[in-house]
Amino acid sequence: MYALGIDIGGTNTKFGIADEKGNIPYQARLKTQEFAEYADLIYALKNDLAKNFNLKDLQGIGIGAPNANYYAGTIEHAPNLPWKGILPFSADVEKIFELKSIITNDANAAALGEQVYGNAKGMKDFLVLTLGTGLGSGIVINGDLVYGKHGFAGELGHTLVSATGRHCACGKVGCLETYVSATGIRRTIYKLLADYTEPSLLRGVSYDELSTHYITEAAQKGDMIALKAFEYTGRVLGMKVSDFVVHTDPEAVFILGGLANAGDFLLKPAQLHFEKSLMPLFKDRQILLQRSGLKADDAPIVGASSLVWKYLSV
Amino acid sequence: MYALGIDIGGTNTKFGIADEKGNIPYQARLKTQEFAEYADLIYALKNDLAKNFNLKDLQGIGIGAPNANYYAGTIEHAPNLPWKGILPFSADVEKIFELKSIITNDANAAALGEQVYGNAKGMKDFLVLTLGTGLGSGIVINGDLVYGKHGFAGELGHTLVSATGRHCACGKVGCLETYVSATGIRRTIYKLLADYTEPSLLRGVSYDELSTHYITEAAQKGDMIALKAFEYTGRVLGMKVSDFVVHTDPEAVFILGGLANAGDFLLKPAQLHFEKSLMPLFKDRQILLQRSGLKADDAPIVGASSLVWKYLSV
Repeated sequence: MYALGIDIGGTNTKFGIADEKGNIPYQARLKTQEFAEYADLIYALKNDLAKNFNLKDLQGIGIGAPNANYYAGTIEHAPNLPWKGILPFSADVEKIFELKSIITNDANAAALGEQVYGNAKGMKDFLVLTLGTGLGSGIVINGDLVYGKHGFAGELGHTLVSATGRHCACGKVGCLETYVSATGIRRTIYKLLADYTEPSLLRGVSYDELSTHYITEAAQKGDMIALKAFEYTGRVLGMKVSDFVVHTDPEAVFILGGLANAGDFLLKPAQLHFEKSLMPLFKDRQILLQRSGLKADDAPIVGASSLVWKYLSV
Repeated sequence: MYALGIDIGGTNTKFGIADEKGNIPYQARLKTQEFAEYADLIYALKNDLAKNFNLKDLQGIGIGAPNANYYAGTIEHAPNLPWKGILPFSADVEKIFELKSIITNDANAAALGEQVYGNAKGMKDFLVLTLGTGLGSGIVINGDLVYGKHGFAGELGHTLVSATGRHCACGKVGCLETYVSATGIRRTIYKLLADYTEPSLLRGVSYDELSTHYITEAAQKGDMIALKAFEYTGRVLGMKVSDFVVHTDPEAVFILGGLANAGDFLLKPAQLHFEKSLMPLFKDRQILLQRSGLKADDAPIVGASSLVWKYLSV
């Protein structure tokens, strides 16, 4: 049997078929913003799928989405999606496919994926941070995802770095994701370009065009602004990870997503400042801060599909 | 049947007998620092108890202590206790009493007490912050205390307020408990007395003698320094509570302990800044920030004894 995994993002909606081993025989994507109604997106996705796959082989549907409420099956006031208000997303997917579905936020799905297919196999207490356009997080305690009273646990991207800091899309000021995310490092680059006089490859790129990939390439060439930006981003990440750790005392913290692909440029300063900032009581516990074991391209699909194996399989 | 509750503090060790309804027919205290060996403290406590109570009526022993490791039954490197290193506390209590025992950190015990006897009855997701000499915390998710991989979850007193802030007993800088605790508000008072010229009742008290109780009395008399100190302490508390909430999405956060006894002087600014700092996604959820439902004097005993009802009753 197969699971359908759907990952709703502000830019792309990725979907694919996964088996229990994490193999993905088929995957595709649609542009989220092209669908004025989310039901149209689901129909388009079903049509694409039906051409390439026998829908009768599906066990269920797992959905990762921003601001998803696991209990209610809804997506609620997601600022980066084209559909406003509270959407009964899971119920509509079930009607259209005539299959059971589970929805949760994309980072929770990634955390389950890490547990089922990635580096958290066998772990019962860990955290996954997804460093994409924003910063998402999934917290696993005693083997289970933490949803909380209202279904919104794990919004670590909106913990405070500085009360007088950067403005965040959520309406607050100084949120972690304004520093540690693809958008955050871009903001840091522009701050550094303003503060320093050194030449930099990054002076030739517009804000809108500046990607994490490009910043990483510049760092590989020794670009001082790019290196400084990773050092700063890693420092903020490491300090905040030491705060997360004293909450739930995990075995490991995994990072995933575009910014995590920068590898040691980000991880080295993050690990250094994590160790430095960690409460001494935790220092001998060898808590890991490392990259996810999921392939970046597959992670959204296997994450969402692992919801099916976790909650819908018989 | 009765449970023996023991609360090990840096100054006093409180102990008492509680029934399942939270009644405490007997309680007493010993000076922790007078015992060079912790075994002597346990023997002294047993002797005192045996004079006043039939030990055969005990079901088990619950122990709350700083830096307690729930899994190992140990107290590990607690900076405020006279005994150094890793102590097999629970095992030695069991030998001396010939009864089963459970140990956890004092704030975890308080959280269980809140669930069994206090304002968290029927709640499955909540936090308790104990504002004493330090700041302790117990996190309950899905009805269960969170211990984490190594047994040390819930050290929220050591999350970061300011990387360039006050020195903490744990060895770090800028920890929450250096601001929000009986010690923290005392430090704030001294900072304010240095910064302002206004007369204040607090100018006549030495640092060592300055108690939360005295600061509260000064605030009741309209003392500007005392009022400012509560406003500042409440602000830091409220901002950090909004950070805790996005981690585990609780139904309520309860505060307990000496500083919490200041009531609205602390709670009003804390609630204001909690609301202000909270991520908008959580704003309509009516997450409570309020005082514990436990009587301050009874809380350590009923908290520790509730470990027995939770884990040792048949």
